[in-house]
Amino acid sequence: AGAGAESLDYEVVENYAYREAQAQRGKLWVSYYVVLKWLFSLLIGIGTGLAAVFINLAVENFSGWKYAATFSIIQHSYFVGFLVYILFNLGLVFSSVYIVTKFAPAAAGSGIPEIKGYLNGVDTPGILLFRTLIGKIFGSIGSVGGGLALGKEGPLVHTGACIASLLGQENGHLAREKISFRVLDYFTWQGGSKRYHLSSKWVRVFESDRDRRDLAFDYYLHGYKYLSKDWYRTTCLGTAGVAAAFRAPVGGVLFALEEVTSWWRSQLMWRVFFTSAVVAVVVRSAMNWCKSGKCGHFGSGGFIIWDISGGQEDYSFQELLPMAIIGVIGGLLGALFNQLTLFITSWRRKYLHKKGNRIKILEVCIISLVTSVISFGLPLLRRCSACPDSEMSPGIECPRPPGTDGNFVNFYCAKDSEYNDLATIFFNTQDDAIRNLFSAKTFHEYSAQSLVIFLVMFYSLAVVTFGTAVPAGQFVPGIMIGSTYGRLVGMLVVKFYRKLNVDEGTYALLGAASFLGGSMRMTVSLCVIMVEITNNLKLLPLIMLVLLISKAVGDFFNKGLYEEQAQLRGIPLLESRPKLYMRNMTAKEASKNQKVVSFPRVVKVGNIVSVLRSNKHNGYPVVDQGQNGETLVIGLILRRHNFSDFVKPISSKGMSIEEIHLTEDELELYLDLAPFLNPSPYIVPEDMSLAKVYNLFRQLGLRHIFVVPRPSRVIGLITRKDLLIEE
Amino acid sequence: AGAGAESLDYEVVENYAYREAQAQRGKLWVSYYVVLKWLFSLLIGIGTGLAAVFINLAVENFSGWKYAATFSIIQHSYFVGFLVYILFNLGLVFSSVYIVTKFAPAAAGSGIPEIKGYLNGVDTPGILLFRTLIGKIFGSIGSVGGGLALGKEGPLVHTGACIASLLGQENGHLAREKISFRVLDYFTWQGGSKRYHLSSKWVRVFESDRDRRDLAFDYYLHGYKYLSKDWYRTTCLGTAGVAAAFRAPVGGVLFALEEVTSWWRSQLMWRVFFTSAVVAVVVRSAMNWCKSGKCGHFGSGGFIIWDISGGQEDYSFQELLPMAIIGVIGGLLGALFNQLTLFITSWRRKYLHKKGNRIKILEVCIISLVTSVISFGLPLLRRCSACPDSEMSPGIECPRPPGTDGNFVNFYCAKDSEYNDLATIFFNTQDDAIRNLFSAKTFHEYSAQSLVIFLVMFYSLAVVTFGTAVPAGQFVPGIMIGSTYGRLVGMLVVKFYRKLNVDEGTYALLGAASFLGGSMRMTVSLCVIMVEITNNLKLLPLIMLVLLISKAVGDFFNKGLYEEQAQLRGIPLLESRPKLYMRNMTAKEASKNQKVVSFPRVVKVGNIVSVLRSNKHNGYPVVDQGQNGETLVIGLILRRHNFSDFVKPISSKGMSIEEIHLTEDELELYLDLAPFLNPSPYIVPEDMSLAKVYNLFRQLGLRHIFVVPRPSRVIGLITRKDLLIEE
Ligand SMILES: Nc1ncnc2c1ncn2[C@@H]1O[C@H](COP(=O)(O)OP(=O)(O)OP(=O)(O)O)[C@@H](O)[C@H]1O
Ligand SMILES: Nc1ncnc2c1ncn2[C@@H]1O[C@H](COP(=O)(O)OP(=O)(O)OP(=O)(O)O)[C@@H](O)[C@H]1O
Ligand SMILES: [Mg+2]
Ligand SMILES: [Mg+2]
Repeated sequence: AGAGAESLDYEVVENYAYREAQAQRGKLWVSYYVVLKWLFSLLIGIGTGLAAVFINLAVENFSGWKYAATFSIIQHSYFVGFLVYILFNLGLVFSSVYIVTKFAPAAAGSGIPEIKGYLNGVDTPGILLFRTLIGKIFGSIGSVGGGLALGKEGPLVHTGACIASLLGQENGHLAREKISFRVLDYFTWQGGSKRYHLSSKWVRVFESDRDRRDLAFDYYLHGYKYLSKDWYRTTCLGTAGVAAAFRAPVGGVLFALEEVTSWWRSQLMWRVFFTSAVVAVVVRSAMNWCKSGKCGHFGSGGFIIWDISGGQEDYSFQELLPMAIIGVIGGLLGALFNQLTLFITSWRRKYLHKKGNRIKILEVCIISLVTSVISFGLPLLRRCSACPDSEMSPGIECPRPPGTDGNFVNFYCAKDSEYNDLATIFFNTQDDAIRNLFSAKTFHEYSAQSLVIFLVMFYSLAVVTFGTAVPAGQFVPGIMIGSTYGRLVGMLVVKFYRKLNVDEGTYALLGAASFLGGSMRMTVSLCVIMVEITNNLKLLPLIMLVLLISKAVGDFFNKGLYEEQAQLRGIPLLESRPKLYMRNMTAKEASKNQKVVSFPRVVKVGNIVSVLRSNKHNGYPVVDQGQNGETLVIGLILRRHNFSDFVKPISSKGMSIEEIHLTEDELELYLDLAPFLNPSPYIVPEDMSLAKVYNLFRQLGLRHIFVVPRPSRVIGLITRKDLLIEE
Repeated sequence: AGAGAESLDYEVVENYAYREAQAQRGKLWVSYYVVLKWLFSLLIGIGTGLAAVFINLAVENFSGWKYAATFSIIQHSYFVGFLVYILFNLGLVFSSVYIVTKFAPAAAGSGIPEIKGYLNGVDTPGILLFRTLIGKIFGSIGSVGGGLALGKEGPLVHTGACIASLLGQENGHLAREKISFRVLDYFTWQGGSKRYHLSSKWVRVFESDRDRRDLAFDYYLHGYKYLSKDWYRTTCLGTAGVAAAFRAPVGGVLFALEEVTSWWRSQLMWRVFFTSAVVAVVVRSAMNWCKSGKCGHFGSGGFIIWDISGGQEDYSFQELLPMAIIGVIGGLLGALFNQLTLFITSWRRKYLHKKGNRIKILEVCIISLVTSVISFGLPLLRRCSACPDSEMSPGIECPRPPGTDGNFVNFYCAKDSEYNDLATIFFNTQDDAIRNLFSAKTFHEYSAQSLVIFLVMFYSLAVVTFGTAVPAGQFVPGIMIGSTYGRLVGMLVVKFYRKLNVDEGTYALLGAASFLGGSMRMTVSLCVIMVEITNNLKLLPLIMLVLLISKAVGDFFNKGLYEEQAQLRGIPLLESRPKLYMRNMTAKEASKNQKVVSFPRVVKVGNIVSVLRSNKHNGYPVVDQGQNGETLVIGLILRRHNFSDFVKPISSKGMSIEEIHLTEDELELYLDLAPFLNPSPYIVPEDMSLAKVYNLFRQLGLRHIFVVPRPSRVIGLITRKDLLIEE
């Protein structure tokens, strides 16, 4: 397990007080809770949508200015244009890396491995803070606007998750304030202590007052958790999915689903879907509003949605072969991408990034320089091609007028009726480049040579850029790479199968799908996202075919990009299936060498402190004496509940055991753990296979399971009938 | 619980032998298994696709002939045409009800409540048999072709599930044959018995031979289950979803998901999606093949897919109010529909259908007559309207030429340039009627009066037809009803908000969504299905809004259509959330009055028989003496495993305990239950809340949970770290 990764705990701690509180919550409370949840889903959707619009607006405007300025300057001097281009990029990239390294280190990278871990039940410190949100937003504006070979989709997923979590926390805080008031109340009533530290009266158990005390503590211990448990996951997840897919609400839901199926419920689905749709509506409204030109360069592009409805709708049987080949290439290149990025990232973490922030900043600046030089310089060296005959292909403007988007850029060409095909894809924003690659009915626009050059250079840049200290998504770069070789294959097909109604743009789309499949391996959601962003349902079976192949090929070599990265970062993900050998191993064998550390029910404070300091476990069984003197396991106490949470109830974080300083007197006190423990943890008999335990653990999202001896008798049997009784 | 409903059992019975068998299964076995699964998914997809094509082809041709014949006859005499129409319908409907009542009683109704139950873990006898499949296919051709107010989508879901299950069983049988060979082997080796009944040697425990015997039995008891466990659910589910959505693969997956989220896994998702896509491809290929007119009337319609890309794409803020009203109407009418059908169905079950098949047949025939009379007669009484000005609305052909599909039917009109708006929707196949209702840019085609008449009549017919002894889906009728009032609201909007670019067809679509939402309440999948079948992603937010409202309104009154029907049929569905009161109830309280019936490890056959005959439980704890004389629960034995399964290993069904006749000698034998029992059933401590038990039960798809006393000690603790160890 990694440096700071800690498991999350979603189990309901059902102590007496929890149940009592539950009993008091009537229908009204339920309705209130439901309304609250929907309201927050709405807010989260709006927030994420606005963040997405803001990022896109900024990126589009920055790069719009950049290209406009450069183009107008190169009319006079290519050299000055080159300098301006480089400096502009460098400035943006520098601001990004500066923000990230100085203020929000957790904002580096795509954030998806961390979110994936979070949804799997592992918390990585810092990923959901407000400063991370800010770092992510401004950092990705800089890094994407600065023309690096990375995208803004991953960061947007992370942004969505942050917004969800912050809103959830806000809600949690409200609850918490009410609660800490009650705890204070209780302290006062109990005699209290000015510092709210342990007081001698506090640990006594007044049998008659038990309920009241329990209640107070319950509110404290569970009110917060109860409200936020569902929250965090739902909303975080929801928005994660949504933002990932931008304008692909269904794909967004499926994305969320594919990542976190271990604890999915159908009500969640609907709420997540709702949030998704809210984001889509917000984005769409903003774009409508911007249509009239109020948003500068934004509006003409930006959000990944490439309508290829003009593309090929039908396909003949023979075309399945080249399509399968695209799948194979995608699998190979995707797996290679994962492997290379893994090597480079681990090398970086081991050597480069240890040396401090200066190195990180320097690294990114160098990469920015290299990227600028390549994307400007290579097209310069490339010979221009003659524009297509305007009679043969009507509706095509070649070369395009300076300062507009589109195909056929005239860049350093000798004649006016020529265009530079490499500049069309390289010296352009990524969105426009993809639009150009996907574009239908533009046969032979690109020469094979240009595409190969672009593929090699961009692939290398993407590999090198991955893992630097800026927010970086892999979605759009993946599409760039994939659509390049896809289009190459398409050109070959056009060449060999002459008579077919083949469209190169459609092949580019398939290539994009195949590379994403080969690298990320999230098949279902990718498939739907591709369909949604290209707005063409009819290509679904082809995309599926390609994805199926590329995933299979990729899986042969290594794990998916996000899994690899999560592993590297020490985020212990549980896969959806237990390993094969677990079927032949019992729970007892899995915990064979453990000497279980447990507490008695009533325990001296000094003992607690020394036990907690002597190990790093997070949960301990509590054992008590039964009426006949036999031992009985009465529950599970969490490290958190033991002390850090209630010693200083006003603090929002809880203290670690090292920070707590107690007097000699206090250490001598006895504490009754019964009201705080979870009286019904999940238990499994010792010879249950580990595979079965694994499923239990993962499907219910647990943190601790007790392995216990075979029971001596069965008190009752629960079947379906027992769960169907009416109130 | 209902008459024949029995729980399904998906728990892996992990006896020694199972583990041994697992250990022997290497990588090769895994790959083989994977290939097999994909292959079967493919086969199931193809099978379901072909069945869907066949049903549609037949229905379209039958009703095509019917309308063509009627139309050509009414040129001469309306009375003769009327007679022909009635008789044609009656003949088809009669054949349907005859097939169903005589050969496949389980094929009546939509089948979705049963499938839903199956996926929730309850088996309804007969629903997945071959004869049910046949009954479903031919029955729905008759009932839909015969013009009743019902659809073919529900039956197609059921058909898909049957195909999946039959293929799965086939596979199971293969495994089983190999297995029974081994069991035979074992019997022979043990001395055997000619009738394969209990033999005295058989029950002895040869300690040294234990493994071999266990192995044999394991293959028998688990080989089958192991192969089919995953199968059934996956494939059944997959195809169910797929078929439901016809040409909406994504919606199909989500449909499956929304129904069965309790045990969802992401690998399943991909396979289900694959099956979905295969169905879509098969259907599409067939339709392409039929385009050239080889399939008679099929090709011009049939599969529900109504492209409304011509519809309204934008909407103004003011339009949200009428849309919300549509949602409310949908909720009210949907809830009313559920309530009325519930009353009528329960009345039918109590009184009418008790009287035998004759009554059932008669009932359906009468309904057919009434339907024919209304759908022919009402348009006759309706005054025709003048065709729209051909200059104002170019591209509209009015009246349409006889024998073609389209709007503007000339039916019993005085002049040639008139059309009968009621006939356009009433005297038509449902698919065409919906296409007409959804059609864009046809303002004022229908008079409000006609729409109201149609709404009332069709609604009543749909209510009455529901629950008769023919295969009947509610999807298409729901769309008919919904789009009628949707269009009505649209007309009002056109009237009041004059200047807006309002399209009545879009309102019809929203109406359809609202009625389905108000009646079925499956929000997410309905939403995606509506988008897919109308091929218009841009309406998604509006559809969501309407669905959200109609579901909320409907939920205020009663449960969803399928839940209500499942309850009526005694299918005990577990909802996705535990009831509120379960939070305040412990597992012990839930099973308080039980006297648990258990077996000792070694038990006399006579005792087993008498215990099994004295109650109807399906699982019993097995209790043994530990080394120190204390009792120990060593596992769970199923009724099935006790006897019926292995007394007659060749039979495919297993015998019930009443059918087994044993001699006095045999009754005196002792049997060791250890090798057959499940040694690690799920256990919960006695004071776990029932809510928590509920989640455990549902999420893992269990059948039995033992409530046990608090354990005396904890042997080990399983955390994430223990589940991450590498091989
Ligand atoms: N109370 C305990 N007594 C003995 N061993 C324990 C105890 N709690 C945990 N362990 C064991 O110690 C190891 C690490 O435990 P730890 O509590 O740190 O869990 P973890 O897997 O790291 O997850 P978390 O993120 O909750 O810390 C595991 O092998 C676990 O089985
Ligand atoms: N071995 C047993 N001893 C005592 N009570 C039992 C036993 N098994 C089940 N019961 C109880 O009897 C009632 C009905 O049990 P049954 O086994 O018929 O289950 P069910 O809910 O009907 O599901 P199934 O479909 O498996 O029959 C339940 O309340 C259950 O708790
Ligand atoms: Mg730990
Ligand atoms: Mg029963």
